[in-house]
Amino acid sequence: MNILVLNCGSSSIKYQLLEMSTDPKLVAKGIVEKIGLPTSAFTHVPTGKDKVSMEIYIPNHTVGINLILKALINQEHGVISSLEEINAVGHRVAHGGEFFSESTLINSEVLKKIRLCSELAPLHNPANIKGIETIAEVLPKVPQAAVFDTSFHQSLPEKAYIYGIPYEYYENLSVRRYGFHGTSHKYVAEKACKILGWNINEKKIITCHLGNGSSIAAIDGGKSVDTSMGFTPVAGLVMGTRCGDLDAGALLYISEKENLSVQQANDFINKKSGIAGISGVTSDFRELHAAIGKGNERAKLALDVFCYNVKKYIGAYAAALNGVDLIILTGGIGENDFYVREQSCSGLEYLGVKFDAELNKTIRGVDRVISQTDSKTTVMTVTTNEELVIATDTMQLVLKK
Amino acid sequence: MNILVLNCGSSSIKYQLLEMSTDPKLVAKGIVEKIGLPTSAFTHVPTGKDKVSMEIYIPNHTVGINLILKALINQEHGVISSLEEINAVGHRVAHGGEFFSESTLINSEVLKKIRLCSELAPLHNPANIKGIETIAEVLPKVPQAAVFDTSFHQSLPEKAYIYGIPYEYYENLSVRRYGFHGTSHKYVAEKACKILGWNINEKKIITCHLGNGSSIAAIDGGKSVDTSMGFTPVAGLVMGTRCGDLDAGALLYISEKENLSVQQANDFINKKSGIAGISGVTSDFRELHAAIGKGNERAKLALDVFCYNVKKYIGAYAAALNGVDLIILTGGIGENDFYVREQSCSGLEYLGVKFDAELNKTIRGVDRVISQTDSKTTVMTVTTNEELVIATDTMQLVLKK
Repeated sequence: MNILVLNCGSSSIKYQLLEMSTDPKLVAKGIVEKIGLPTSAFTHVPTGKDKVSMEIYIPNHTVGINLILKALINQEHGVISSLEEINAVGHRVAHGGEFFSESTLINSEVLKKIRLCSELAPLHNPANIKGIETIAEVLPKVPQAAVFDTSFHQSLPEKAYIYGIPYEYYENLSVRRYGFHGTSHKYVAEKACKILGWNINEKKIITCHLGNGSSIAAIDGGKSVDTSMGFTPVAGLVMGTRCGDLDAGALLYISEKENLSVQQANDFINKKSGIAGISGVTSDFRELHAAIGKGNERAKLALDVFCYNVKKYIGAYAAALNGVDLIILTGGIGENDFYVREQSCSGLEYLGVKFDAELNKTIRGVDRVISQTDSKTTVMTVTTNEELVIATDTMQLVLKK
Repeated sequence: MNILVLNCGSSSIKYQLLEMSTDPKLVAKGIVEKIGLPTSAFTHVPTGKDKVSMEIYIPNHTVGINLILKALINQEHGVISSLEEINAVGHRVAHGGEFFSESTLINSEVLKKIRLCSELAPLHNPANIKGIETIAEVLPKVPQAAVFDTSFHQSLPEKAYIYGIPYEYYENLSVRRYGFHGTSHKYVAEKACKILGWNINEKKIITCHLGNGSSIAAIDGGKSVDTSMGFTPVAGLVMGTRCGDLDAGALLYISEKENLSVQQANDFINKKSGIAGISGVTSDFRELHAAIGKGNERAKLALDVFCYNVKKYIGAYAAALNGVDLIILTGGIGENDFYVREQSCSGLEYLGVKFDAELNKTIRGVDRVISQTDSKTTVMTVTTNEELVIATDTMQLVLKK
């Protein structure tokens, strides 16, 4: 079964075509970028063939998706002979609000609810909807599924998702903690338990998804019970350019001093803050390490703040769970940055963590236990694969139909 | 030595006259309220005599302080025969910025710095300054000391006080975590160690000051290394009417939807949120319990959110400290609300907490260990006394002079 996975952002479309079986295979992947801009571009990477890149004007998502479909069946760099070989399409949908606690096949009722959630993710849900509508037009017979970034966290108890603001704002404006990166948190927790031969229902797990966006989740018996992102993905950990947890009074103080509009304040906390804001040089962790190597003290400070925040969230969620059996590090940073792993997990001996600092230094992008064998709490790197989760969920929904 | 302690708020002045010795005695206390309003009032409570209350127009802080001084030497309800019996005046000063890491005698240089910090505490520092100036005028020979709400937390490491925003906002606008309630956190930590016969330099302590305002501090070897309040006292725990930690994006979302000005948004997070906002009925914990008793589910939710937040901060600070020897509960709620203590400390067995739930139920307003004798981590209620700290610091500074 071939599943096309689409991740439609506000101005980009990432895709993967996966051949699903007991050992899923990546058939092709690629990206449509800068939709609507003169510099828009398309990159197609068919497995086993040469990469194709083109600068071409892509005015909207519909044109972008048609470009992808054409590339998949292109005589030269295509990977299937006809669009009929696509058995289903799975969409990463940013926000499912309180409607969706799991992935679902898309029908008009589901689409209506995704539309209702656009208010909560105004940049992303409309793009997801365009993707769904375009596929429905071009491939009307192909089943589509929605896999939500929020749904895994719908199991949070009320005490973890209600903010300290008037309750009416939850009732009338749906302001609450939703959390994001759900597919990744769920996937790495389940994958780790499979590798370790553990029953996830009996385990307390803290998953740290550290990448461009970063979030941490507390998972009890396989269910998310708390997570660091909130109503928006700006909350929680300090990120590349996002502020993470910030005193609301401080934001208002800055807004007043700088006479910021709401839109400008949103730009400030989303695009000008985080690691880039503290360091003043970069939001990229490889560049950050390079700057530290050259003696940049603010780059070092940014990294220290990041690791300290990760550690505090691990501590907070250990309290939420009354202990922790497994700490997982994943995402671009979690899988590859040994320094971040070491700093974030240092000084957790009180939790029974015996970190293997020597082994850790050698680990990049693999699934591997990085605590010592007699560590009461296991620490592990696990590679995430959100597209695979989307394809798997989509396949299962289609087969169940 | 008689020390007058003044706590000048934006529209109130609280005072205590203390006779300092190895066993300090409260000679008189009272409050001037609603300064500048037609309903302003004065209450004077001389120890061993009848309370005096009067509704009298008090246009400003100077008039208020003169009223207090007159009451102290009044023939009928006074407690000293002349103002010369006041040996020193200690002021609670809200904000010492990065200037003050300890209490200090006040001179023109110190006053200048307190004035510079007014920007950071615009409601409180100007009131403190008025109090200092009035005393300088009326009692020009009496030494005055400033005891800062922030100074204990000046030992925070940079990684704990820098926010994930552009570093220039720290350099140019002094936006960083300061923390508050410093006198209380320091006092109860030292008092508990004295009672337990411990050397504070060797201990890891988490102090939970839970009252009208609430904050938690991580204290390592007697020094504050992290605390839940931030640039302003609105951050951290959910409080009576303050929101505590809130997704900055959520605040902007609400500001946009409701078209709030910065001032209105500040009112929203400071005066309309917190326990009052969630419950919809009260910011007072006694009333909250009464409402829960009548089956009010949102009151229960507010209490659950509060206790869960306390627990998560205890967990985060246990990680910051790599373990914890002592958890202290203080403040109006911490000293008196056994339910909050139980809920906040339940499920901390992973930290080695063995809570004595039966004993805890019987404890109100005393210094008492409420964990079991074989608990690895000790849990204790300790009564706080900020006025006593102010008087003690003032006395020591005067004697050292």
